[in-house]
Amino acid sequence: MNNEIENKCKKAHDAAGHLAVLGTKQKNEALKGIAAALDKARTHILSENKKDIEAGIKKGLSKALIERLTLNDKRIDSMIEGIEQVVSLPDPVGEVIENFKRPNGLKIKKVRVPIGTIAIIYESRPNVTVDAAVLCIKAGNCVVLKGGSDAINSNIAIAGIIAEAAYSKGIPDGAISLIGTTDREDVKELLSKKQYIDCVIPRGSAGLINMVIENSRIPVIETGVGNCHAYVERTADLKMAEEIVFNAKVQRPSVCNAIETLLVDEEIAGAFLPKIAERLKNAGVEIRGCERTRAILPGIRSAAEDDWYAEYLDLIIAVKIVRNTDEAIEHISRYGSHHSETMITKNKKEAEKFTSRLDSAAVYVNASTRFTDGFEFGLGAEIGISTQKLHARGPMGLKELTSYKYVVQGNGQVRK
Amino acid sequence: MNNEIENKCKKAHDAAGHLAVLGTKQKNEALKGIAAALDKARTHILSENKKDIEAGIKKGLSKALIERLTLNDKRIDSMIEGIEQVVSLPDPVGEVIENFKRPNGLKIKKVRVPIGTIAIIYESRPNVTVDAAVLCIKAGNCVVLKGGSDAINSNIAIAGIIAEAAYSKGIPDGAISLIGTTDREDVKELLSKKQYIDCVIPRGSAGLINMVIENSRIPVIETGVGNCHAYVERTADLKMAEEIVFNAKVQRPSVCNAIETLLVDEEIAGAFLPKIAERLKNAGVEIRGCERTRAILPGIRSAAEDDWYAEYLDLIIAVKIVRNTDEAIEHISRYGSHHSETMITKNKKEAEKFTSRLDSAAVYVNASTRFTDGFEFGLGAEIGISTQKLHARGPMGLKELTSYKYVVQGNGQVRK
Repeated sequence: MNNEIENKCKKAHDAAGHLAVLGTKQKNEALKGIAAALDKARTHILSENKKDIEAGIKKGLSKALIERLTLNDKRIDSMIEGIEQVVSLPDPVGEVIENFKRPNGLKIKKVRVPIGTIAIIYESRPNVTVDAAVLCIKAGNCVVLKGGSDAINSNIAIAGIIAEAAYSKGIPDGAISLIGTTDREDVKELLSKKQYIDCVIPRGSAGLINMVIENSRIPVIETGVGNCHAYVERTADLKMAEEIVFNAKVQRPSVCNAIETLLVDEEIAGAFLPKIAERLKNAGVEIRGCERTRAILPGIRSAAEDDWYAEYLDLIIAVKIVRNTDEAIEHISRYGSHHSETMITKNKKEAEKFTSRLDSAAVYVNASTRFTDGFEFGLGAEIGISTQKLHARGPMGLKELTSYKYVVQGNGQVRK
Repeated sequence: MNNEIENKCKKAHDAAGHLAVLGTKQKNEALKGIAAALDKARTHILSENKKDIEAGIKKGLSKALIERLTLNDKRIDSMIEGIEQVVSLPDPVGEVIENFKRPNGLKIKKVRVPIGTIAIIYESRPNVTVDAAVLCIKAGNCVVLKGGSDAINSNIAIAGIIAEAAYSKGIPDGAISLIGTTDREDVKELLSKKQYIDCVIPRGSAGLINMVIENSRIPVIETGVGNCHAYVERTADLKMAEEIVFNAKVQRPSVCNAIETLLVDEEIAGAFLPKIAERLKNAGVEIRGCERTRAILPGIRSAAEDDWYAEYLDLIIAVKIVRNTDEAIEHISRYGSHHSETMITKNKKEAEKFTSRLDSAAVYVNASTRFTDGFEFGLGAEIGISTQKLHARGPMGLKELTSYKYVVQGNGQVRK
């Protein structure tokens, strides 16, 4: 047993009751204090981050991973801006969600309350340390952070600064902590602390998320695996379709709301595919197609069964020609990850079929899937995108970090 | 691997997309068909139930368990009435929960949808087979039932009648099934079917619920462990306090929303305890007290540490004298199960402290905890009472058996 984990979880749990009843003003003051402290500690943060970068280079991490790991003044600026944004958001805690009176006179209020203590398990992006802590605190939750081992020095520095600043502004001691070890077994230990932790949110690769699901005794909110689709139906404005497909694939291919498969109605495949293919190729996208696609786009690689399941997160796209909307829905239902799908069409009836029958967190008509995002949906912030159906689905903001309780006022009612 | 489980889960999952889009009228017709079929099959149900009762008596099941297992015409009547009630409830599916437009013109609707496929794992009450199936279907969900082995013949008969009647009225084949084996390993197998099942709801003892949490890879909604409290504060109307405490303990001691511990403010302990003690004793309740309680009620048994944690579900009550509301809150926070608590008081400020600081699904002022119930809260039906904080808390009705998705209408928007 790792005593650090036991102690930090217990302390967070003990602090949760006190944090839950703090007022909005006090929580906001603490957030402002955190922003100021990060601003003041830039030199320290950057020097600790440098240790991680040097260790990463020695270890042979890919350029992309080093780039994700790297902090600089601009990135610290955007952490601070992020905090200021969260300060400006309404506090979800205390909202009366429902308010009703029963025939026996009982007055029942359903009131929004914090979840309690949340564990966030993530990979090597040190900015998540700030985002996660700040969102949890604003929603009245204690947080136990477990970041990736490659960012350990950066994370320890950042979490230390955050906690110290928060506690000096009245956030209860123990409310924010980081498990400062790099042993993967420690994640399993953390996932067994059901008596202290109310919810676990993993953020990162499918491998990390599956490991958390396999090992957790605590309720998990799954986030982010996205095998998203665009379907170009026969009545589509083909120029619009081209813009949407290109945007959804190319604008930021490494994120979960980018598309991985393009489905094209057979009626317009001959007209649409050569145009979009040229544009995608010019942007460096590799196309893998079904046999009918390859008849129109000779020279592209053949798509295998695995391609339909793939979340490439890269400049690769799988393309399939389908007979109609029904076949598009069938394909997405079978191979998709229920994240985000879009249909480009002018046919309202077909669009209605697509949006009602597809079981995905976000279903679009005539827009890019890249909008599945807390900021784009107007939630003001985002702790992740849920791909499960319990508790929260799609982008999760402050409200999704809360629960509720019933407060019942009587005048002596007993049950008959 | 048990092929029956794999096949039934897969069939339910395949049916879920079709059931999700059925209209309210069609679902209600199916529910009425189920009620009629149960009515018609009374003889068959009762003769299958007799097999279970005889096996149970042979096995030496307690009188209480045999009584829970036993069906008769009156109990079948109330199953049928329960179905009629669910028919009359509004269909939660399709409700537009939120509807907003973003500055870029995207129109976003948050629409209520079924969860998908739900597994219900329960002990030996055959009426749960009907309740669970009917509530799941009304909310558009497929259901895989796994009842207790002692009721296996009754459950197979009932589930068979329900499924046949539902399918003949257009519910997709495979939407309702019961795992007809009695091997406990089969529960573990069911809990591994994450690819088919969206949610597991265990109903029954703490042992069953813990087993499900330990073994499930599927999100679980915990239900029902209730170590509930009543706190009689110094300003309480003592007659009202007596009525509430008596009702919460005695009216139905075997259920989760009955109280297990009574906390009494030291200021009124001398006046209150002898009266309530006499009334409880006359109703056959055993009292176990702290030392100060025993000074007022000589002859009662001493409460041990374990008593404060106990969910007796029986005519036993633990009694503790506390200095004030703070100590009552501390005690409940430490030993309680976060289900339901009540405070009897005339002091609004103290009541506000109690309701805001206690982290329980339902917190009452001047009413019995026995009201924590889907029917009493006006939900119209109840699949269980959640004691966790994700997804649903407290009584769960039809709405709590749903999720949501985002349907986004654009006119060519792409992300910058």
